[in-house]
Amino acid sequence: MERRDIFKAALVGTLLCASPLAAQDDKIAIGVAIPSATHGFMGGLNFHAQEAIERLEETYPQLEFVLATAGDAGKMVNDIEDMVATRGIEALVVLPFESEPLTSPVQAVAEQGIWVTVVDRGLSVPGIEDLYVAGDNPGFGRVAGEYFAENLEEGDNIVVLRGIPTTLDNERVEAFQAAIDGSGINVLDMQHGNWNRDDAFNVMQDFLSKYDDIDAVWASDDDMAIGVMEAIAQAGREDEMWIVGGAGMKEIIKRIMDGDPMLPVNVTYPPAQIATAIELTALGMVSDTPVSGRFIIGSQIITPENAENFYFPDSPF
Amino acid sequence: MERRDIFKAALVGTLLCASPLAAQDDKIAIGVAIPSATHGFMGGLNFHAQEAIERLEETYPQLEFVLATAGDAGKMVNDIEDMVATRGIEALVVLPFESEPLTSPVQAVAEQGIWVTVVDRGLSVPGIEDLYVAGDNPGFGRVAGEYFAENLEEGDNIVVLRGIPTTLDNERVEAFQAAIDGSGINVLDMQHGNWNRDDAFNVMQDFLSKYDDIDAVWASDDDMAIGVMEAIAQAGREDEMWIVGGAGMKEIIKRIMDGDPMLPVNVTYPPAQIATAIELTALGMVSDTPVSGRFIIGSQIITPENAENFYFPDSPF
Repeated sequence: MERRDIFKAALVGTLLCASPLAAQDDKIAIGVAIPSATHGFMGGLNFHAQEAIERLEETYPQLEFVLATAGDAGKMVNDIEDMVATRGIEALVVLPFESEPLTSPVQAVAEQGIWVTVVDRGLSVPGIEDLYVAGDNPGFGRVAGEYFAENLEEGDNIVVLRGIPTTLDNERVEAFQAAIDGSGINVLDMQHGNWNRDDAFNVMQDFLSKYDDIDAVWASDDDMAIGVMEAIAQAGREDEMWIVGGAGMKEIIKRIMDGDPMLPVNVTYPPAQIATAIELTALGMVSDTPVSGRFIIGSQIITPENAENFYFPDSPF
Repeated sequence: MERRDIFKAALVGTLLCASPLAAQDDKIAIGVAIPSATHGFMGGLNFHAQEAIERLEETYPQLEFVLATAGDAGKMVNDIEDMVATRGIEALVVLPFESEPLTSPVQAVAEQGIWVTVVDRGLSVPGIEDLYVAGDNPGFGRVAGEYFAENLEEGDNIVVLRGIPTTLDNERVEAFQAAIDGSGINVLDMQHGNWNRDDAFNVMQDFLSKYDDIDAVWASDDDMAIGVMEAIAQAGREDEMWIVGGAGMKEIIKRIMDGDPMLPVNVTYPPAQIATAIELTALGMVSDTPVSGRFIIGSQIITPENAENFYFPDSPF
């Protein structure tokens, strides 16, 4: 952690005018700025951030954390400026609310010599952060595609729901297509359900009215999987097809644990990646272990056999 | 850590016939298999592995570590089989002595449900390991190249020493060349010094006899930098050129700290990456934090200003 000593020096300066709070000031402060728990995935992310902070404050008493959640980019920028100005953070872990408006403020933090860890969504300018932690989007599509290729026969039919049109969604879908290439599976249709339950419901209703023979659905997201299952239930076609969502929503994981034939497996894209980012940042503060670089967290398949290890009943997601 | 519960179950079985050593058996054992400290970099790697293990045994009393060092691939295979058979490891951290002979044995370990972390050198078959931790070879070349581009003038002359002919060396050199592209720097010559002090000495002697005007040397490795400096000293041309090595050997870092004009900077390729791998593996054993995936540790530039943070006087490297 090459930047720590700068702050030790700054701290020594502070202590010349030590207040009764000086003991408090001896701690290394780490700021964590994340979006509010507005929807399922972010709810899980907030849960895992808090859990990691609790665990770390117990493990490393020399650390303290400043957690701020924001419902918009402006609030997040203010949170970060406040962490630097009034809390003297030596490291920042940030999941940018949006890339563009957060780039300059986070760059300004890095230029002050503060360690910066960016999670999930990159900044608009490369090279600002010391550490980048994110999920594996091509892996997310590939792992799902491999399951389809292994568990369907040549000539079987599937439909696919895509997310919001983004590079991220393209990466996932291209890797899925590459993984089923040569398997003889027919992709009847692909439409954008925008990672949204209601949109996915509408897309799936349309698919069901158009196609008599569907063997499986790649819903590619658990919120979309919920919408898809609702459409299938309304059409009374639950026995015809299975569905693979993604990201490990606890209701879905529970059904996999219980052996639901409609939901044989899931693929991880863990909101707990925020915990990985906070842990690595903390490790860099308490040791010489190298933690700069790029950590892409693998997408793993969740089956009835291992589902228990991905089930967090206390998390909102 | 999805595989832990399998082992918890195995442990419960063991406890039915509990011995006075049962308390000991409650610990989660992590095996660490690395090459012996035969040369500088591996010496540093051994040092940082031991340091990480000491720190982790203190931080997490529920963990215990089995460290084995091997001077050849056969010994490493035996070490790993022994860790599984007699020590009941639940995770393995391995820096393969060679890729080919270690691939099947490590695959067999993974197939038993034991967590596998591979460090630095990959296995011959992709997808065996749960976590891969390695340095950034293109980054190593790029960061060095950027320094040359920023600190030399158009028309300045450099020579380059390459490592053993490998993909790894190609990645470094190609990234270096891309970074100096358009700078107007002349690369007079490039020869393989094979990451070896004596070979580098001979290559540099040859360069010095051929070229009257050399402004800088990319030695691309600290062992080679030592050989290069010896050749320059014997030719009495110390005042003409500066040298950039790489990997952060402590003697070189000390000279950067002291402001040696021949050694203005260095580029990291940290032997301490073994500590990162051991720490992440341990974290997966004690928490639900996702630690599977691929962590590429960034190559950073070491300057007189930050050199102190990369200086490990107790390490042999």
